[in-house]
Amino acid sequence: MAATTTYLTGIQTSGTPHIGNYIGAIKPALAAAQSTEDYDTLYFLADYHSLNTVKDPAELRHNIRSVAATWLACGLDPQRTILYRQSHIPEVFELATILSSVTAKGLMNRAHAYKAARDRNEAAGIADLDAGINMGLFNYPVLMAADILIMESDYVPVGRDQAQHIEYTADIAGSFNHLYGDSYSFPIPQGSYPAGEASLLPGTDGRKMSKSYDNTIPLFLPENKLKKLIRRIPTDSTPVEEPKEPDTSVPFQLLTQFADADRLAQTRKRLEAGGMGWGELKNELFEVINAEIAPKRERYEELMASRELDDILAAGAERARQRSRRVIAQVREAIGIA
Amino acid sequence: MAATTTYLTGIQTSGTPHIGNYIGAIKPALAAAQSTEDYDTLYFLADYHSLNTVKDPAELRHNIRSVAATWLACGLDPQRTILYRQSHIPEVFELATILSSVTAKGLMNRAHAYKAARDRNEAAGIADLDAGINMGLFNYPVLMAADILIMESDYVPVGRDQAQHIEYTADIAGSFNHLYGDSYSFPIPQGSYPAGEASLLPGTDGRKMSKSYDNTIPLFLPENKLKKLIRRIPTDSTPVEEPKEPDTSVPFQLLTQFADADRLAQTRKRLEAGGMGWGELKNELFEVINAEIAPKRERYEELMASRELDDILAAGAERARQRSRRVIAQVREAIGIA
Repeated sequence: MAATTTYLTGIQTSGTPHIGNYIGAIKPALAAAQSTEDYDTLYFLADYHSLNTVKDPAELRHNIRSVAATWLACGLDPQRTILYRQSHIPEVFELATILSSVTAKGLMNRAHAYKAARDRNEAAGIADLDAGINMGLFNYPVLMAADILIMESDYVPVGRDQAQHIEYTADIAGSFNHLYGDSYSFPIPQGSYPAGEASLLPGTDGRKMSKSYDNTIPLFLPENKLKKLIRRIPTDSTPVEEPKEPDTSVPFQLLTQFADADRLAQTRKRLEAGGMGWGELKNELFEVINAEIAPKRERYEELMASRELDDILAAGAERARQRSRRVIAQVREAIGIA
Repeated sequence: MAATTTYLTGIQTSGTPHIGNYIGAIKPALAAAQSTEDYDTLYFLADYHSLNTVKDPAELRHNIRSVAATWLACGLDPQRTILYRQSHIPEVFELATILSSVTAKGLMNRAHAYKAARDRNEAAGIADLDAGINMGLFNYPVLMAADILIMESDYVPVGRDQAQHIEYTADIAGSFNHLYGDSYSFPIPQGSYPAGEASLLPGTDGRKMSKSYDNTIPLFLPENKLKKLIRRIPTDSTPVEEPKEPDTSVPFQLLTQFADADRLAQTRKRLEAGGMGWGELKNELFEVINAEIAPKRERYEELMASRELDDILAAGAERARQRSRRVIAQVREAIGIA
């Protein structure tokens, strides 16, 4: 077991980060990282998980670098935190093979993501409920267990909707420990869940901001494109001079996530009093977002254009592999392969 | 694609080799290897496949070395043939993860070994047909496809009962090539099937010799134990002086696989004439088997007792990885991970 407590966070690489990811995941995670100085913190880019959905090589390649550059630009300190790509850790895939031998297929049959895919087929009237489901999706919980266990993780910060993955990982680790525990045992990982509800950031159409709704504001859009996209957010046709209801408008909801309390109160007052138009609100939203994002965008562009990003990821992989090599060696010894 | 034609053979490591394996697999494979001088021939020990059934680490460790030592002692030339352990090739497990993303789950639902396990549950009146089935068994065809494709194999010598694995591998390779073929394509492997029926060697109880019937004659038993085991083969109670039916007796059936035609004809004649007892036949059987096996047994014991065996496997792995590293690099590039 690692000497200190280990926190492991997985990051999806199936899209380019948008401001919903920034507010809902990146910012709180980096704030939490400040308060975990006594812990080992590891972040990994789950690039092989993304392969199940992203079949375009150029897109996948871009997404991986873009997500890594985003976290770094937003303040992830690669000295303090080990940042690495899943695909750089061959021990993960070997461990997944090993864990398969102690994982009941029945457990996978009940996995949420798999069942959701079957439910979609059923709702669409497709007779073969497994139609279009690949083995990557079905194996997903085993690979995720390997991601977690290869680093001897103690805590895995996840949303409540990911709790099953942690339970499955604990279950699989328990099966392994039961069989081979005389020689080697995995620490049993626990989920670490956010306090309170995640804030649901609206997308440009008012629904939850999500890649699947095509309503996102990409985090590091160039300034002029960001301005244009914010201008195009639909609002009602209340004239400038009339009083407005701030809380039901998308621009104001977005503003609450970026403006400080004073500014927010002032803007709310002006909207409710009448005399402030939606256009002006959108300009303000753009300014507030851009003020926070601009220095990060600059760093992001710099990282995307240079080898520095790749060097950081290579260095992170080397540090992560110091763990994974040690763990796989013990596991191989325990099962009789070494 | 490899410059020359590649033959890849997988060897199970779930037990200690017995004379059924020797006559049915090892001898014909090594004879065939003599005639494939223009080809690259690779043999791998499928040790991670065995993990699904062998949960005792000491037993698995012994089986792996024992199987490797057996093939070498029987004449496999590790200069001519690349002999390696699956577990020494990390690229296999990474490729299995990649192939999962292009493999339909429905294909696995129809795999023979999985369906057979479900049928056994059904026959036993177990309501959950997936009971006792682990993900290693369910994933088996994907891992086997990775074994085959990572070496860019053209031909895979297998029994007819393994034909489905080759079809599945061809199918999975086809899916990959369809998606990524502009950048990299796997050669589509073909099965190479033995001409004629495999000879069914009887075990000590007259049924087919099989580890699962516990009726095997281990190939490299010490001489005195081999003699004892052969003596204990049941025969009928026909007295020495009476004529006997050679072909229905287990010792004579075994003798046909080891004695030359002249000796066989002579023994048949003596049995049919009367005057030759089963005891004498068993002595003859022991002598004939032992004459063939003794020098191989000596080499086997030597290999089992020394580091030479491990060195040969390490050297084989290094040669095999020259292929696997090259292939995985091309695959990673094609899918957008590199």
